[in-house]
Amino acid sequence: MKPHFAPARYDVVGIGNAIVDVLARAEDSFIDRHGLTKGAMTLIDAAAAERLYAAMGPGRECSGGSAANTIAALASIGGCYGFIGKVRDDQLGKVFAHDIRALGVAFETLPASRGAPTARCLIFVTPDAQRTMQTFLGASVGLAPEDIDVGMIADSKIVYLEGYLWDPSAAKEAFRKAAKAANDAGRLVALSLSDPFCVDRHRADFRDLVERHVDLLFANEEEIKSLYRVSAFDDALQKVRGHCQVAVLTRSAKGAVVIAGDEVHVIDAEPVANVVDTTGAGDAFAAGFLYGFTHGFDLARAARAGAIAAAEAIGHFGARPEAPLKVLIADRLGAL
Amino acid sequence: MKPHFAPARYDVVGIGNAIVDVLARAEDSFIDRHGLTKGAMTLIDAAAAERLYAAMGPGRECSGGSAANTIAALASIGGCYGFIGKVRDDQLGKVFAHDIRALGVAFETLPASRGAPTARCLIFVTPDAQRTMQTFLGASVGLAPEDIDVGMIADSKIVYLEGYLWDPSAAKEAFRKAAKAANDAGRLVALSLSDPFCVDRHRADFRDLVERHVDLLFANEEEIKSLYRVSAFDDALQKVRGHCQVAVLTRSAKGAVVIAGDEVHVIDAEPVANVVDTTGAGDAFAAGFLYGFTHGFDLARAARAGAIAAAEAIGHFGARPEAPLKVLIADRLGAL
Repeated sequence: MKPHFAPARYDVVGIGNAIVDVLARAEDSFIDRHGLTKGAMTLIDAAAAERLYAAMGPGRECSGGSAANTIAALASIGGCYGFIGKVRDDQLGKVFAHDIRALGVAFETLPASRGAPTARCLIFVTPDAQRTMQTFLGASVGLAPEDIDVGMIADSKIVYLEGYLWDPSAAKEAFRKAAKAANDAGRLVALSLSDPFCVDRHRADFRDLVERHVDLLFANEEEIKSLYRVSAFDDALQKVRGHCQVAVLTRSAKGAVVIAGDEVHVIDAEPVANVVDTTGAGDAFAAGFLYGFTHGFDLARAARAGAIAAAEAIGHFGARPEAPLKVLIADRLGAL
Repeated sequence: MKPHFAPARYDVVGIGNAIVDVLARAEDSFIDRHGLTKGAMTLIDAAAAERLYAAMGPGRECSGGSAANTIAALASIGGCYGFIGKVRDDQLGKVFAHDIRALGVAFETLPASRGAPTARCLIFVTPDAQRTMQTFLGASVGLAPEDIDVGMIADSKIVYLEGYLWDPSAAKEAFRKAAKAANDAGRLVALSLSDPFCVDRHRADFRDLVERHVDLLFANEEEIKSLYRVSAFDDALQKVRGHCQVAVLTRSAKGAVVIAGDEVHVIDAEPVANVVDTTGAGDAFAAGFLYGFTHGFDLARAARAGAIAAAEAIGHFGARPEAPLKVLIADRLGAL
């Protein structure tokens, strides 16, 4: 299939937690000693964030956030994008806003002028390139329905929402408002399930969303298995089929499966010379796919663009692209 | 020569501007359009920093500062180190303090509780791997004589000062106090000339320092030529000879020359597979050398350790080490 979109100012508007990542390398013994759940994203409070940061090695700060990473990667390929998310009016909030705007992304959400500081995610990268994330949501929990720019969403081919938004309660209402605005305007709603533990926290809501509101679903193998509480990937695949227009299921080195009704594509992973850090691989895959999906690619070619973007993300430290994705994708798939 | 040191708690205490770097890639046309001096460090005010940051691409924040980079690299090799420099009690100040303390470095300078924010250096890395630095000194200009912990300096084999300290006027007095404390305690004073334009701003003072107070001088080719206003490297070499106990002169791909009285060593650069970003190469060279110098290496071997550390710095984006320097140096030079 190739979707048809009514004309729109934006290709995709993303909504998610606005987070600055602090990345540092760590040994497995560190993960064990601090009782962290390796490979997952865990929510922590301000005190735990202070404590872990004190124990963390020297870091590097980069703008992050799942949907924000996807929008940043999309903007680096080409097209017109927007982002909605909450920072505070502090130094890290300015860094977040700078980095996403510097890519040409429309980001106009009013920063909070009081309350918790800008969200940060402490990311521990172990020698096996796996990332373990500890997120202090800070100001991002303040995202509220009044922050949702309905006009922006009505003027975007797709609104892309991250499952993590379901964690802060006001953000959940913002999420619902955004999905409704997209539905009302005849636009598509895309959801990324974010994390198997996030699915665990909100399974009933996520199933309802997928069955009734979501047109495009992005999930990795663990997330989709968690959604349906099954242990085999194929069981999840059969369950999700028909629930939404398109499901994009990523499986790390095993590649990805894309399902749209009767259409099924099994796409290989792109080779990665040196697996450095898997932070942001899923976000990058979604970006490559969404670029293709909104720019006339068929599903298989869109998924290949996703695989190329994911391979780029895995080859370096940090979630946002370092190499020119536009060139990488054009090299392998032909002119964009 | 191999120096003899009286017992000391610290191997080196560094004093410098406490800066957080914001690194982004930029084209040469950007450097031209904004009238920046390519390859140099230029001081800018808050308004210019705002303006340039707005025009800058998405960045990555890493703790920086010349002497602080050297101390961070030293700590990652091994030994006991301290740092003195001024941040504000803001988010970037906390990042700076975290990163250097996470390496085991003693950093106890009281942060400023008002006034300008923590210093930042906007670093534009062009495709030729050259870095162009625009520094807003912010809180670091507040470093004052009362911040100099005389006891710490008296208990360190070497106090290492960066020439950039000569830019903020209170810091200059702090510099003098630290050098005097080291002299009084029979410790060595090391100076890095920092930047040819910095030498240009303070030539008379730097010559006086080198002739009367400095035991170890670190300079690159442009800096030492600027110090003596000569156009040939060899002329500068002949002039500096005899002025200080040891001069370490680095020449990028041409390697380095170390002079200590009659002793002269000409050391090749270490090969670098992929020159990514030269930010911090000089700081890293000083670290490798100082590690060797304070740990019983002869001068040639200390300089080789410097060249290995510099090669590591050049091979990645950002000034602080990413690979384990201890292992890299031990692999090439034998057990440390």
